[in-house]
Amino acid sequence: MMIPTPSALAYVPFVSVANMMRLVHSLGPEHFLSELAAYIEEDFRRWPDFDKTPRIASHSRDGVIELMPTADAESYGFKYVNGHPKNTRTGHQTVTAFGVLSSVATGYPLLLSEMTLLTALRTAATSALVGRYLAPEGARVMALIGNGAQCEFQALAFRALCGIGTLRLYDIDPGATAKAARNLRAQGFDVTECRDAIQAVEGAQIITTCTADKQYATILTDNMVGAGVHINAIGGDCPGKTELHRDILLRADIFVEYPEQTRIEGEIQQLDPDHPVTELWQVMRGTVEGRRNARQITLFDSVGFATEDFSALRYVADQVRGTDFHEPLDLMADPDDPRDLFGMLMRARDA
Amino acid sequence: MMIPTPSALAYVPFVSVANMMRLVHSLGPEHFLSELAAYIEEDFRRWPDFDKTPRIASHSRDGVIELMPTADAESYGFKYVNGHPKNTRTGHQTVTAFGVLSSVATGYPLLLSEMTLLTALRTAATSALVGRYLAPEGARVMALIGNGAQCEFQALAFRALCGIGTLRLYDIDPGATAKAARNLRAQGFDVTECRDAIQAVEGAQIITTCTADKQYATILTDNMVGAGVHINAIGGDCPGKTELHRDILLRADIFVEYPEQTRIEGEIQQLDPDHPVTELWQVMRGTVEGRRNARQITLFDSVGFATEDFSALRYVADQVRGTDFHEPLDLMADPDDPRDLFGMLMRARDA
Repeated sequence: MMIPTPSALAYVPFVSVANMMRLVHSLGPEHFLSELAAYIEEDFRRWPDFDKTPRIASHSRDGVIELMPTADAESYGFKYVNGHPKNTRTGHQTVTAFGVLSSVATGYPLLLSEMTLLTALRTAATSALVGRYLAPEGARVMALIGNGAQCEFQALAFRALCGIGTLRLYDIDPGATAKAARNLRAQGFDVTECRDAIQAVEGAQIITTCTADKQYATILTDNMVGAGVHINAIGGDCPGKTELHRDILLRADIFVEYPEQTRIEGEIQQLDPDHPVTELWQVMRGTVEGRRNARQITLFDSVGFATEDFSALRYVADQVRGTDFHEPLDLMADPDDPRDLFGMLMRARDA
Repeated sequence: MMIPTPSALAYVPFVSVANMMRLVHSLGPEHFLSELAAYIEEDFRRWPDFDKTPRIASHSRDGVIELMPTADAESYGFKYVNGHPKNTRTGHQTVTAFGVLSSVATGYPLLLSEMTLLTALRTAATSALVGRYLAPEGARVMALIGNGAQCEFQALAFRALCGIGTLRLYDIDPGATAKAARNLRAQGFDVTECRDAIQAVEGAQIITTCTADKQYATILTDNMVGAGVHINAIGGDCPGKTELHRDILLRADIFVEYPEQTRIEGEIQQLDPDHPVTELWQVMRGTVEGRRNARQITLFDSVGFATEDFSALRYVADQVRGTDFHEPLDLMADPDDPRDLFGMLMRARDA
C-alpha cells in the first residue's frame, strides 16, 4: 500500500507576513524599494508582452474586493486585494492583499505570498519610479497628504529613488499625522506637521495625496498647486473616489498606468473619456517625453495596475529562492498517476 | 518595545490537500457529496442573490488559467483553476485549483482551501444534482466516456444522489479505463470496460462525457444517442473544446448553469447565440420544468460556475469549523494600529 506522502509537486512556496518582514529587513527597506522599482520599470518597458485587463471588482456598501490578473508568455500573476475604508474602526486594515505567481506552461502556482506589505511597497516604489521621470529637477521637499498606512512607504521610496529628505505632513486625523511624523523622524527625515493641506503644500515640489475615504473628495483645490509641481495622486483609485479638484486636472499633464482602468477608477473619471493622457510605459521606453519643462504641472493618476503586482511577485520569488524566507504549503493535490486523483484520495484513507 | 506576535486577525484558516482528504473520509465520500450537493442546490435556488460574471480566463498555447469570483451580500468567493491537457506527461494534474472565501463586510479572507479535490467533488455533486432533475425515471446504468481524474467522482456522486450502480467505461487510453475500473469495482460498482464509445452507451440511461482534449472533438455522434437519455457533458468547457456532435444538441433540451458563460465555453458554442436553453436555477426553484417525458433527450452542458465553488467553500468552511482539519496561515498583516503598517514592519526588525 502506497503511503501518500506529498511529493515536491504538491507544495507551493509560501511567504508569510513574518517572512516578508524578515526579507525586507535582510535587504534593507530602501534597497528593497529600489530593486523592486527596477523590476517594475523593466516590466513597464516590455508592456506589449503582457495580457492586460482592468481588474475585476466586486463592490459592496462598505468596500471593494478585487482580483488583478496579468500574464506574460512565461508567468501568470494575480493579486487579491480589498479596500474597506471603515475597517480601521474594528482593528482591521483598510487594504489587505495576497497574490500568486504561476507557470503559464503548467498552470501550477510557483509562489503564494502575503501582499499587504508588498502592495504598500510596490505602490510606493511605482510612485517614486514615476517621480524620477516627472518630478522637477532638484526636488527635495514632498507634501504627504493622508498619513495612513501608505504614507511612510511613499516617503522611503521617494528618498531611495528621488532624494527627497524633507516632508510636510497633513491628515484630517491629527493622530495619523503624529504617527507618521514619529515613524519618519525615526528614519531620519526632516518632518513638518501641518495644520491643513494648504500649509502642507507650501514649498513642496512634489505633492503626494494618499487619503482613503470612498467619496468624491477635494484634497487639493486649484489655487494650491503652483507651476512646476509634480502631483502623485494615490488615493483616487475606484469609481466614486477622487482627491483632486477637476480644475487641477485640466491644468496638468496626466500620466497613467493603463488608461482602460484609470478612466474608470482614477482622478480622470471626472474628465471626458477622450481627455488626453500619456501612458507611463511609453515614457519609460523613451518613446514619449515625461516632464518637458520646469513650469509644467505633471500628475501621476495612480490607481495601481496588475503588472506592478506581477513585478513585485517576480521580485520576491527571485529573492526568496534558496533562502528560508518561505515555507512549503501543501496546496496542490499530487497523485502518483496524475489521472488517478480518486486513487490518491482512497489511499489516504488506508494510510 | 512591542513584539509583533500576530493576533487572531493575522491568520487565515487553511485547508491543505491532506486535511481535505481527512475531512472527506471523516464524513464519508458519498455523504460529503450528498451534503455538498444540498449546499449547491440551496445556492442555485437563491440565484438572484449572487453577483455573477463569466470567469476571467488567461489562455496560452498549452492551457488556461482562470479566476472565478462570485459574491452574495455576506460572502465573497473565488477559485483559481487551471486546465492543461498535456500536464499529465510531466506528472502534473490537468486541473488544479485553490480558492478563498471572504467576508464582504471587511474584505478579509475567512478560508483558504485546496480545491483540486474539492473541484472534482463539486463538479460531480453538481452533475448528480442536475441528474436528479433530468435523468429518466429508474435510471440505473451510466456510460462514463473519458476515464481521467473526474471519472470516479462522477460515479460516486451519481450513486449517492441518483442510485446509479452500473457503469460502462470507455477512454481512448485503455490504461485510464483500467485505472477507473479498478477504483470503481473497489467501491462496489458493477463495471463494464468497453472497447469504444458505441459499446459504452449501450443500455445506458445516462451518458457522462468527461474527456480533456482541448479541441473540437466528437465523443458522441447523433446515432449513438437514443430517446429518453440524459447526457451529462462535462468536458466541453472552454472555447474551442467540445465533445458532442452538433446534431445531438439540436435534438436535445439543453440545460445550463449561466448562459453568458456557457455560450462561450460549453457545447452550445457550436450553436447560434440565441439557441434556447434552460437555466438550471429556474428548474431547481420549480419555476421551469426539468424532464417532461420519458422520450425527451436532456443535456446538461456543464462548464462549472463560480457559485458551485462558492457553495463548496461555504460547505467546507462549515465542516472544518471547530475541527483540526485546518491550520492557521500568517497571511494578513495585522498591526496594533491598523494605520501603522510601517510601524509594524519596523518593530519586526527590532524584535
